[in-house]
Amino acid sequence: MASEIDELRQLFTGQPRPTSWAERRQRMDDICAIDPPPEDVTFTAFDIAGLPAEWSLAPGSDETRVLLYFHGGGYCSGSIRSHRAMVGALGKQAGIRTLAIGYRLAPEYPYPAALDDALAAWRFLRSQGYAPEAIAIGGDSAGGNLTLATLIALREAGEAMPAAAWLVSPWTDLTMSGATLDSKAAVDPLISRDYLNGLAQAFLAGRDARDPAVSPLFADLSRLPPTLVQVGSSEGLLDDAVGIARALGAAEVPVVLEVWPQMIHAWMVWAARLADGRAGLAGAAGWLRAQFALRTG
Amino acid sequence: MASEIDELRQLFTGQPRPTSWAERRQRMDDICAIDPPPEDVTFTAFDIAGLPAEWSLAPGSDETRVLLYFHGGGYCSGSIRSHRAMVGALGKQAGIRTLAIGYRLAPEYPYPAALDDALAAWRFLRSQGYAPEAIAIGGDSAGGNLTLATLIALREAGEAMPAAAWLVSPWTDLTMSGATLDSKAAVDPLISRDYLNGLAQAFLAGRDARDPAVSPLFADLSRLPPTLVQVGSSEGLLDDAVGIARALGAAEVPVVLEVWPQMIHAWMVWAARLADGRAGLAGAAGWLRAQFALRTG
Repeated sequence: MASEIDELRQLFTGQPRPTSWAERRQRMDDICAIDPPPEDVTFTAFDIAGLPAEWSLAPGSDETRVLLYFHGGGYCSGSIRSHRAMVGALGKQAGIRTLAIGYRLAPEYPYPAALDDALAAWRFLRSQGYAPEAIAIGGDSAGGNLTLATLIALREAGEAMPAAAWLVSPWTDLTMSGATLDSKAAVDPLISRDYLNGLAQAFLAGRDARDPAVSPLFADLSRLPPTLVQVGSSEGLLDDAVGIARALGAAEVPVVLEVWPQMIHAWMVWAARLADGRAGLAGAAGWLRAQFALRTG
Repeated sequence: MASEIDELRQLFTGQPRPTSWAERRQRMDDICAIDPPPEDVTFTAFDIAGLPAEWSLAPGSDETRVLLYFHGGGYCSGSIRSHRAMVGALGKQAGIRTLAIGYRLAPEYPYPAALDDALAAWRFLRSQGYAPEAIAIGGDSAGGNLTLATLIALREAGEAMPAAAWLVSPWTDLTMSGATLDSKAAVDPLISRDYLNGLAQAFLAGRDARDPAVSPLFADLSRLPPTLVQVGSSEGLLDDAVGIARALGAAEVPVVLEVWPQMIHAWMVWAARLADGRAGLAGAAGWLRAQFALRTG
């Protein structure tokens, strides 16, 4: 009998990647949104001066605490829809509100469009009365990259840090120096060096991949908030996750790294059909609750 | 006002390391045992066919679950006494029994004397009716190295794995290739490259430091049990901890790495005077409880 993760892998095999961005985005939305979000979570779509946004709230959750979430998709695809089930489930388990945004994508909108949108969402939350210590920021894959870029930009602007950061399978090194991009290539059904090169090219639009603004692995990470990094062992991006945990720790940031055996890139997107996806979300939810409690009592 | 960790640092400064092994061992025992163990924990000394050993048990703890603990000290010093307070406190918080051993030390007894003693302690526990899933193994510094060596030896002998492994500031690479041995040298009051070289020379007695038997960073780590790695950010051995977490994760071992800001080598030894030492032990105790529950229900 095939394991849950093996059955999930079959969704991705034998299907060549579409060539147009429109088709890629449609396919990613379809394959990520294959399971519905938790039934009792309410989603409310709106926009922040044109930026698509969506609240989620489960019955009994604390409306005064919020996770600001940035979806993955290599800065070129992914959406509020693709990650709705994961974000809604996390918010429900953590007992908090979530705010997801549909930031602008490359190649139409290369760096720093996504960062500008992320900062607009932060300012929106602040304008709604959320103190920094009542906000956590998280994201998977390119959304993890955007999470770190946002935190660094806030620090540079002299703003107070949010309560915590949550990184799932983060893409932290656009130079692709991680050895696991090769050593895990045979077991990673989603991410390859070629695929990432294409995404990076679209996002960078000529910018140097070594720029700390786009590769937070090389950035000054001091004074960032406590960070949870979760990654699967079957990921080419395993070294991106280990590397950022090392760099955060070396910069005196409280950091926890979890490596989940056999899990694939951003596996928690499919938590509805993966016990280890639900366990990963439960762990992240408990960790976020603890961080909020530490900061706001 | 000096912080707790700064006050602890003062214990180590301005005191040149004694030259004789006997004086070094005495000093390590004195400086590690500066605070008494928890008052309500009972310690019972005995020996396993000549190997010094000590049980600990707190009121209400589960006598059917045990942590087998290997103290640090570079394979050349450290003792049951030096780590008694830390091990007793962990056992109390985890609600389990502990078994500490005084394995033979280099240079009098180089590799593999300590490993032979560790395996004798494992066999003793098995002979007392402890199933593998009722045992966890842990250690700090060289004791973390010994924990990994023991697990690898058990796997190679075809034995079932214990429920979990707990590594505090582990020394995993006797080739000393970690970049943090240099980048953290100025903030690490305890561990230097020179100091480690002397210890390694005594322990290796001519053996190649690249041998996976003495440097588990280079070993086959597959099928090892779930592992918690805890390390301070002010440690030369930070990369030893990050490196083993990466290698365990890449080998499909469930692994959690925690980096604790400002903490120094094996800081939990001084938990009685460090809030982050108590927090680290509380986290490890909770994690061990969860691992036992997963394995034995």
